[in-house]
Amino acid sequence: MPLGKDPNCPIALSLEVVGEKWSLLIIREASTGATRFSEFQAALGIAKNVLAERLSTLVEYGVLDRQPYRDSGEREREEYVLTPAGRELRLVLGALSQWGSRNRPTESRLRHNFVDTRSGDILALRYVSESGRVVKTDAVDVKLVLLGAG
Amino acid sequence: MPLGKDPNCPIALSLEVVGEKWSLLIIREASTGATRFSEFQAALGIAKNVLAERLSTLVEYGVLDRQPYRDSGEREREEYVLTPAGRELRLVLGALSQWGSRNRPTESRLRHNFVDTRSGDILALRYVSESGRVVKTDAVDVKLVLLGAG
Repeated sequence: MPLGKDPNCPIALSLEVVGEKWSLLIIREASTGATRFSEFQAALGIAKNVLAERLSTLVEYGVLDRQPYRDSGEREREEYVLTPAGRELRLVLGALSQWGSRNRPTESRLRHNFVDTRSGDILALRYVSESGRVVKTDAVDVKLVLLGAG
Repeated sequence: MPLGKDPNCPIALSLEVVGEKWSLLIIREASTGATRFSEFQAALGIAKNVLAERLSTLVEYGVLDRQPYRDSGEREREEYVLTPAGRELRLVLGALSQWGSRNRPTESRLRHNFVDTRSGDILALRYVSESGRVVKTDAVDVKLVLLGAG
């Protein structure tokens, strides 16, 4: 089997979780505060059955957690909250946002800012060496390696 | 229109380019040296018509460039080379790789290392403030903003 076909490559495994149409937009909405089915539906305008399927997949893979809530006078419903693994997908959202901002010029003034929870500082995703040195993305190579190989 | 539906959100615009099944795996292969149709096909094992469609989309959006080549005694063919915008997608590949390595444990020893072209140092994607301070991903908030708004 060529290494590229390895279904256990972490990139391929991540795409299994978030590679379907709408999944990352659902995560985007969850990252800016949406928790309820109706909120995701209103924000994205997608068919309810597709939304239900995607939410179930994201719960199944442990990036969203179903939690009960009850509005006064209403029946109990469930909302969807990012798990720690789901919160960590802001790596992927940030990469897409940064790439899009640089490479797909738009007249829209809408942006997602990634900010330090404590200081509010605006952050950017950067490739950083173990010693803390920042390396430009165009000076980064991708090497396929087999861990533990001689 | 709710802001979330804005088709010009950079995250949504990026997903227009790389959000289809196989697209990011094609970019992954291109990032480790594949350029020829037959190489992508052998590495990914996908149907030729799907591969041809995906390559065309990636060319259309300016992340791959078609370039002619000719092996001795053969007819001229085209190969696919990452453009600067395509190379910058290693931000997205790195994010998926890092997320997968942490959140989808696997027995596979296959990894993609992101390394400094010059020094060979292994790199990680990190959220960094303008002053160069690294912030942990779980201490990053996502804020929807309208640029230029009061």
